Amino acid sequence: MTHAIDPVNLARALIAAPSITPATGAVFDVLEEALVPLGFTVERFIDGIEPDGPVENLLAVRKGKGPRHFGFAGHLDVVPPGVGWTGDAFVPEVRGELLYGRGAVDMKGAIAAFVAAVAATPTECGTVSLIITGDEEGAAIFGTRALMEHMDARGIRPDMIVVGEPTSVNRLGDMVKIGRRGSVNIWIDVPGTQGHVAYPHLADNPIPKLVKILAAIDAVSLDAGTDWFQPSNIEFTDIEVGNGATNVIPASARARLSIRFNDRHSGAELIAMVERLAHDVEPRAKVMGKISGEAFLTPPGELSSLVAEAIHAETDVVAEMSTSGGTSDARFLHALCPVVEFGLTNATMHKLDEAVAVEDLHTLTAIYRGVLMRALVD
Amino acid sequence: MTHAIDPVNLARALIAAPSITPATGAVFDVLEEALVPLGFTVERFIDGIEPDGPVENLLAVRKGKGPRHFGFAGHLDVVPPGVGWTGDAFVPEVRGELLYGRGAVDMKGAIAAFVAAVAATPTECGTVSLIITGDEEGAAIFGTRALMEHMDARGIRPDMIVVGEPTSVNRLGDMVKIGRRGSVNIWIDVPGTQGHVAYPHLADNPIPKLVKILAAIDAVSLDAGTDWFQPSNIEFTDIEVGNGATNVIPASARARLSIRFNDRHSGAELIAMVERLAHDVEPRAKVMGKISGEAFLTPPGELSSLVAEAIHAETDVVAEMSTSGGTSDARFLHALCPVVEFGLTNATMHKLDEAVAVEDLHTLTAIYRGVLMRALVD
Ligand SMILES: [Zn+2]
Ligand SMILES: [Zn+2]
Repeated sequence: MTHAIDPVNLARALIAAPSITPATGAVFDVLEEALVPLGFTVERFIDGIEPDGPVENLLAVRKGKGPRHFGFAGHLDVVPPGVGWTGDAFVPEVRGELLYGRGAVDMKGAIAAFVAAVAATPTECGTVSLIITGDEEGAAIFGTRALMEHMDARGIRPDMIVVGEPTSVNRLGDMVKIGRRGSVNIWIDVPGTQGHVAYPHLADNPIPKLVKILAAIDAVSLDAGTDWFQPSNIEFTDIEVGNGATNVIPASARARLSIRFNDRHSGAELIAMVERLAHDVEPRAKVMGKISGEAFLTPPGELSSLVAEAIHAETDVVAEMSTSGGTSDARFLHALCPVVEFGLTNATMHKLDEAVAVEDLHTLTAIYRGVLMRALVD
Repeated sequence: MTHAIDPVNLARALIAAPSITPATGAVFDVLEEALVPLGFTVERFIDGIEPDGPVENLLAVRKGKGPRHFGFAGHLDVVPPGVGWTGDAFVPEVRGELLYGRGAVDMKGAIAAFVAAVAATPTECGTVSLIITGDEEGAAIFGTRALMEHMDARGIRPDMIVVGEPTSVNRLGDMVKIGRRGSVNIWIDVPGTQGHVAYPHLADNPIPKLVKILAAIDAVSLDAGTDWFQPSNIEFTDIEVGNGATNVIPASARARLSIRFNDRHSGAELIAMVERLAHDVEPRAKVMGKISGEAFLTPPGELSSLVAEAIHAETDVVAEMSTSGGTSDARFLHALCPVVEFGLTNATMHKLDEAVAVEDLHTLTAIYRGVLMRALVD
C-alpha cells in the first residue's frame, strides 16, 4: 500500500481538532487530507444557522471497478467535554494502553479505523463512500438528512451502510446494532377554567382530568417485544401546571411523555392513541407529538452476517445482534439500504476521560477491512 | 347624641388613608380620632416585620353599665387596587348613589357604620369593644391572633362578636355567615431515580406513582355536606416536575392540593388521610400539610337571631344563614365566643371601582345599632 494509514495517528489528528457539536472546519480538513491521497473525491458543504448550525457535512466517494457500493457513515462532532478531565480533552494522549481524548470512541477513532481500512483495501474493488456529518450529537437537522439529499441529487446510493457508532459493550465486537427503537415525544395540554378553590362550581379544574388521562396511558401495554426488539415503553417525563397560588384552581395542566417503540408501532399511530385517550376524558385536550425517529430494523441477513464474520475472524468474538439503546443517524440512512451499526466499545462515550484502547483501533481497522473485502470483492 | 357620626364621612376619611395590607399608621389615626370622643379607651400596637409585617392592631373598649360585652371585629387593611380604576382608588368619591374607593365595602364602610351605630347607642348599655387589625387580607400572622393574645393578657373577652365582613350578596342583609369551612393545603413529594428514557430499568419514574396517588385522592368523597355546610371539597392546585429534558426520567414529582372542609373533619385528619393514600403507593412519599383554619360553626342561636331580627326590622329582608365562601378572621375569634359575620354587599370587593351604596351605609348603621341594642339592653 502506497498510502498506508496508521489509525492511531489519524485518530490523534482528528481528536486534536476540537469539534463540539455542531462542528465545521479543521476536523474536516484533517479527514479530507487523509482521504484525497486514497483516491477519494471529497465534497464538503455547510448548512444551517445558529443555534443548530452551522453544520459541516462531508461526502467522499472512491469509484471502484466492482459493481458493489459500500457506505460508511459517521460523525466528527463530539459532545462537550465537561469539567474534570485528567488531561486536556482536545489534546490526544496515549497513557498506558489507552488513547485519551473527546471523540476517541464516539467516533473519531472509528472513522480513523475505517479510513485506515480503506487504505489497505485494493482500489480495484467496488465503490466506497464516506458519509460524515458534523451534527449527530445535536439537533441532527442539518446533518445526515442534508447529506442524504445531497447524495440523492448526485444519484449516489450505497448498497449497504455500516454506521461507526460505538456499539461494543464489554469488548470490541460483542455487539452489532441491526435496528433501533423509534422515539416520539408527546405533549398533552388540558384546558380548564381558572377559579378560587372556595368556589369550585365556578371553575373547571384541569388537573383531575390530566390525572385520568395519564392513568389511562399508564394502563396501556403496547406490546411484549418481538424477536429483535424489547417491549415498547412509555415514560412520563414532565407535568407542568405552574400555579403558585394555593387558593387558585389553575387554568390548564400539561404533561409530556416519551415513547420508545419497536417496529410494531409508528410514531403517528402512538400520537393518535394518546390523543384518543385524552379526548375520552376531555375533548378539548390538545395533543402534540414530535417523532424523533421511527423504529427500523435491518433483519439479520447478508450485511449483518458479513460484519459478524469479519468480527469473528479477527477477534473470535460472536457478536450479539441487538436493537437496544437510543437513536442514531442510522434511523435516517435506513431509508437508503440495509444499515447496521458497529464500532468501538462505548463504556467511556460522552464521559470524562473518554478513551480507546490503542489495540482496539488496530483490531477495528482489520475488522472494517474484512467487512470491505467481504462486501466488495465478490 | 352629642357625638353623632355620619358613616359616609367616616368611610370617606378611612378610604382616604391608603392602607394596602399589611397596614399601619394614618388609617388607624382616623379611627382612633373617631372613637376617643365616644368614650373608648384605645390601645394600638405594631407587630411583625417584612414581608408579612409591620402590622398595626387596634383594641378599643368602652366599658358599659350593663353586664353584656359586645365585640365588633374587622380590618382596616385593603387589597391592592390594581390598574384600571375610573378614579383614584384612594380618593373617595360619591358618584350618583355610590361611594367609590378601595375598602368601601371590604371593610372600611362597615367599620364606619359600626362606629356611627355605637355613637347612636346609649353609653349606659353594656360594654362595647372594637377589635381591628391591619392584617386580614395578607398573611394574617400578626393581626387578629396578636389582638387575641393582647385581649387575653388584659382579661378582655366579649360575650359575642360580629365580624363586619361584606357577607351580603344581592342586597344588604340577605346573608349572614354563621361559620366557615376549614382550609388546608397539602404538598405531596414523590421521590424517584433519574435516568434516561431509553434505559427505564435503571431509573424509577415518580410520575406514574404521583398519578396513582392523585387518582386515589380524586376518588375520595369526604362527606355529603351537613345541615349547615356544603360538602367538603378537594382541589388539586398544582403539579410540578420541572424536567426540561425530553429524554430524561425525572428524579421527583410534586403536587399540591387544597381542601375546604366542613366541621366533620379536622385539618390534621385530612393530612393524615392524604399521607396514608400516598404511602399506599410509595412509602417514601413526603406529605406536608399547612392548616389555614379549622372549620367552625356558631349554630343558629341567640346571636344569629338578634342579627337577623335587626336586619329584618330595618330592611324587611330575611337573612340566609350561610357557611359558604372563603376564610376570614372569624376562624380565630370563634375560640372566644359565638361569632357571626355580617356586613355590606360583596359584589365589588377586591375589584376595580369598589363601591358602596351611600344608602347602605346608613341602613347598615341602623342594623348594627339594632344589633347593639338587642345584644346589650337586656
Ligand atoms: Zn456517536
Ligand atoms: Zn375583608
